[in-house]
Amino acid sequence: MNERLAWAYLSRVVEGPSRPLQALLSAGRCAEEIAHGVRTRAGWVGPLLRETEARHGWDRAAEDLETAERLGARLIARGDDEWPAEEFDSAFGFAATGISEHLRTYQSDAVAPHALWVRGHALAPLLARSVAIVGTRALSGYGKAATEQVVSELASQKWTIVSGGAVGVDAVAHRAALVTGTSTVVVAACGLDRAYPKENAELFGTIASHPKGGAIVSEYPPGTTPQRHRFLTRNRLVAALSQGTVVVEAAWRSGALNTLSWAEGLGRVSMAVPGPVTSTNSLGCHRRIRDGRAQLVTGGADIRALLEAVGAVDPDGQYELAFAPDEVQVLSRNELRIFDALPPSGEMPTEQLARAAGMTIPLCVTILVDLNRRGVVRRVGNAWERVEH
Amino acid sequence: MNERLAWAYLSRVVEGPSRPLQALLSAGRCAEEIAHGVRTRAGWVGPLLRETEARHGWDRAAEDLETAERLGARLIARGDDEWPAEEFDSAFGFAATGISEHLRTYQSDAVAPHALWVRGHALAPLLARSVAIVGTRALSGYGKAATEQVVSELASQKWTIVSGGAVGVDAVAHRAALVTGTSTVVVAACGLDRAYPKENAELFGTIASHPKGGAIVSEYPPGTTPQRHRFLTRNRLVAALSQGTVVVEAAWRSGALNTLSWAEGLGRVSMAVPGPVTSTNSLGCHRRIRDGRAQLVTGGADIRALLEAVGAVDPDGQYELAFAPDEVQVLSRNELRIFDALPPSGEMPTEQLARAAGMTIPLCVTILVDLNRRGVVRRVGNAWERVEH
Repeated sequence: MNERLAWAYLSRVVEGPSRPLQALLSAGRCAEEIAHGVRTRAGWVGPLLRETEARHGWDRAAEDLETAERLGARLIARGDDEWPAEEFDSAFGFAATGISEHLRTYQSDAVAPHALWVRGHALAPLLARSVAIVGTRALSGYGKAATEQVVSELASQKWTIVSGGAVGVDAVAHRAALVTGTSTVVVAACGLDRAYPKENAELFGTIASHPKGGAIVSEYPPGTTPQRHRFLTRNRLVAALSQGTVVVEAAWRSGALNTLSWAEGLGRVSMAVPGPVTSTNSLGCHRRIRDGRAQLVTGGADIRALLEAVGAVDPDGQYELAFAPDEVQVLSRNELRIFDALPPSGEMPTEQLARAAGMTIPLCVTILVDLNRRGVVRRVGNAWERVEH
Repeated sequence: MNERLAWAYLSRVVEGPSRPLQALLSAGRCAEEIAHGVRTRAGWVGPLLRETEARHGWDRAAEDLETAERLGARLIARGDDEWPAEEFDSAFGFAATGISEHLRTYQSDAVAPHALWVRGHALAPLLARSVAIVGTRALSGYGKAATEQVVSELASQKWTIVSGGAVGVDAVAHRAALVTGTSTVVVAACGLDRAYPKENAELFGTIASHPKGGAIVSEYPPGTTPQRHRFLTRNRLVAALSQGTVVVEAAWRSGALNTLSWAEGLGRVSMAVPGPVTSTNSLGCHRRIRDGRAQLVTGGADIRALLEAVGAVDPDGQYELAFAPDEVQVLSRNELRIFDALPPSGEMPTEQLARAAGMTIPLCVTILVDLNRRGVVRRVGNAWERVEH
């Protein structure tokens, strides 16, 4: 059994999130070993044996990979270039510190997925600057307008819009991303061969083939049906795959608030858009702001300011708002890391710079392009240099 | 010259707020002495001499009192029963501590008025439970609906609505108070013989004679015209005469935000109602919430919870949110003070209870009536006792 088949087998017989499987991976076991151990009921597999008791004989790995291929999808795992390792490390590393009180009953689910089924563009580069936009399914006219406004303001700075593909705010956010020409990622709660909800099937197809970049992602193998517990674990991926989560319109008890709690629990920025107090549709947003659990944001500028202050992705796993006193000279932590890695004079090639700054090349390039636009650095072929002021 | 004439003279020749005049009053000088000193240019009057250089000969005290009488108004000052001494002591006492950074350029104005012209009901009893509702003059349909909703929710608990009598949010708030049967106070920026703005003249008349209690208040003697600086000093009185200020709809630069800053500077509760982010009319509210300078409130319940947590009027001048963990058993600080002052069994007359609790009788009665309604205490003639549970 090769590695890909092993991941496919594990994806089916171990429903994520699985703490025992993550523990084996962290201990250095590879997918083939673990798959073999699970299938042969080896004692060293430990608690994962019990978790796979019912499903371990259900080996459909080859068929699942064929189904995925037919859908234009693929299975990815740690070690693959497009695996969002930094995102998962920072999010679940933060959760593991136990700093946040906001996971409570879901704390046991706060581990990375072991594999992801992806349809569309390479995942990791899409996420270098990404924000989750979620909210009620029972969208009002105001909620639609507010979602479109927020997305279009983020699109102008090429932020990727991550959401859950549901009707309501999710679908409006995905569509607005397509219309305004920025990338978008759907995190599904079922197999990629299922379109849920049905009315968004065409939207998902458009996103997967979006020229500006788009992807549909799922933790579940083909054929998996959407179920309540899967929406909740899916929400953790929406929060983990973005630098911050924004709730637009959520009534008192809205599933979108669960995603917002995940953002808190994973050390992401938690944000909410206010709305009319004369409607009940923004009650959940207002409550989170009032309780100090979400930052009030009125649009793309507020959101970018918060995310840039935090630093897009922080490999240290630290979570700290670094508001600079002088807004003119403000560089986010990641921007500063790149700027400081450049020599005071002379140029440095992109790869060397990314290594020196301790970042992935895609993230580094994204930030460099922005710094270049703002006149802080200058491109010289495949290298970069500081701009003298 | 009797005391009333002396106050009328000082009201005209010293335009409030006057720190030198407050200093003389604090030093124990009475109005007659100070008026005499100002008129005769006595050296002991100190810095007040310079402040009254232009106007000290302008003695229209008798005419001003006659004009007021014709308007059904009166002049009040410290020592009068209806003078809101507790409100002014706590507000300007707080400002004097220098704790708040939010007065800045207006710090020099952070002193009590020396006299007030009042038309309508006795002032102090109206203010035992009062909240200021202010906002933009350029009101939207949403702003009108939100103002009416907030006021009607406060009216059901008999909170007095304080505002500035301007068009827009102010007028809607005053009118909603009349309609929903609670008391309301207008703080004017001109003499009571002037109606500003003109279109609200009839509203002011209705308020002054409102059966549920209402008053028009001004720091300025008859004939004084509304001018820009008077709106700003008037705003301090709106904030001082209420336990908290709520801004409903305020664009980026709205005068209502000045009142909100006064509330902060005077140790009052500073609150803002959110609104649609798709309009510019709530930008000022959102900014204050985002910057942590105002609490987000969605209606009367939020407002009451904040004000009751602070304690309606706190003679200690302390400003502390005391959120009780158990909402069922929550009593505000002032409620607890009264409850604790009652003997475990047996009754206590109102006056003795107010003295024991360290409160004015009107405030004490207001709270007792509410505690009675909630079944915490019981009235026995002119006395009160705890209800056994």
